[in-house]
Amino acid sequence: GLPGSPGLKGERGESSLTYHSAFSVGLVSKDPPPNMPIKFTKIFYNEQKHYDETTGKFLCVIPGTYYFSYHLTVYLKDVKVSLYRSGKAIMFTYDQFQATNLDQASGSVLLHLKAGEEIWLQVFGEGAYNGIYADNINDSTFTGFLLYPDMAS
Amino acid sequence: GLPGSPGLKGERGESSLTYHSAFSVGLVSKDPPPNMPIKFTKIFYNEQKHYDETTGKFLCVIPGTYYFSYHLTVYLKDVKVSLYRSGKAIMFTYDQFQATNLDQASGSVLLHLKAGEEIWLQVFGEGAYNGIYADNINDSTFTGFLLYPDMAS
Amino acid sequence: GLPGSPGLKGERGESSLTYHSAFSVGLVSKDPPPNMPIKFTKIFYNEQKHYDETTGKFLCVIPGTYYFSYHLTVYLKDVKVSLYRSGKAIMFTYDQFQATNLDQASGSVLLHLKAGEEIWLQVFGEGAYNGIYADNINDSTFTGFLLYPDMAS
Ligand SMILES: [Ca+2]
Ligand SMILES: [Ca+2]
Ligand SMILES: [Ca+2]
Repeated sequence: GLPGSPGLKGERGESSLTYHSAFSVGLVSKDPPPNMPIKFTKIFYNEQKHYDETTGKFLCVIPGTYYFSYHLTVYLKDVKVSLYRSGKAIMFTYDQFQATNLDQASGSVLLHLKAGEEIWLQVFGEGAYNGIYADNINDSTFTGFLLYPDMAS
Repeated sequence: GLPGSPGLKGERGESSLTYHSAFSVGLVSKDPPPNMPIKFTKIFYNEQKHYDETTGKFLCVIPGTYYFSYHLTVYLKDVKVSLYRSGKAIMFTYDQFQATNLDQASGSVLLHLKAGEEIWLQVFGEGAYNGIYADNINDSTFTGFLLYPDMAS
Repeated sequence: GLPGSPGLKGERGESSLTYHSAFSVGLVSKDPPPNMPIKFTKIFYNEQKHYDETTGKFLCVIPGTYYFSYHLTVYLKDVKVSLYRSGKAIMFTYDQFQATNLDQASGSVLLHLKAGEEIWLQVFGEGAYNGIYADNINDSTFTGFLLYPDMAS
């Protein structure tokens, strides 16, 4: 008999267009308290709501490789922050302040996260280093985005 | 009869491979004038020409979520810049200068842009804060890229 | 006889999800020597091993457009670094130090790279500018990632 008809066309390749997780937020007042995540409540972008402005924590919903960056205005006091990954401080940014010499401090990192992990910024130690400043014409910001989602297998 | 031949390979996944919009540029001389976009004319990357070095403005051609970052050398005068989104200053970076203590200031943000929106950097106010420095061995830069194009539906 | 059964389904289309190249690393001791790449050996992410911590160089394996960023703690001495692209210094970041005013300096850039090109950070000149600091609670970091792989044609 005749050969059968050709097989079905393969599936469309998986698209990265459907994996979005990103946030970009700013501080609205100065001197964030120590011993808790810094709460950034000026929202530049938070479409997926993976950053929780009530807790200051980003929650990883889509496992994959993420980029995080922050830029802090250093004014009136020294600044030292830690980037926390699920309860552990993994990166530290320090900048000393001197009178009439307001500064900027920044950091960035790439991390591979599992679903459920949390990332946040926190003042280092007991509060001596919380000179992070913001007002309506001065920003201190925190941003993160999913760069590479893990492969669907 | 015999089984039919295998089906055709599936279409390429809708891929973000085809959506490119990015630029990375540097200043070539110091003290950019106020009241207009800062013009960065040292080109590290501008393949799609969405950054116009004659105006200093990035034009959003592909709607989607973009990341912008800048790094400014603070020398001889204070620096304050605003990131403008289509005529409105939405983010501010300030750094004070003191003699023999040249500094670096930086900022970054994620924004969802519609086609036609423009992004640029501009000195804040009337010129007192334009101490942004660059020469052939000192850079001040501005970079942006499309992270997530909006879904084709 | 009857026609054969249908052929097998085609292969899945190509996806951008398979093109990954990224690293994020930190310094573990201060005062990197001049005249050679700075070796960052605290590994935040280096899954594809395209950053070689024994040489301090990132090797481009997948041609495309890459983003690089770095954040340096400036302490006890001035800091000046160059970003090298295959032997040529293409970008410069400078920050002066003054007593009791530890600073942060940072830079970022987008570059289109061919396979085989190398990127690294190096202290500028003969060593006067190597005040880059790090210890177990102070970081200086270097990060890079593939943003847009070149089109497969
Ligand atoms: Ca300063
Ligand atoms: Ca300085
Ligand atoms: Ca300082």
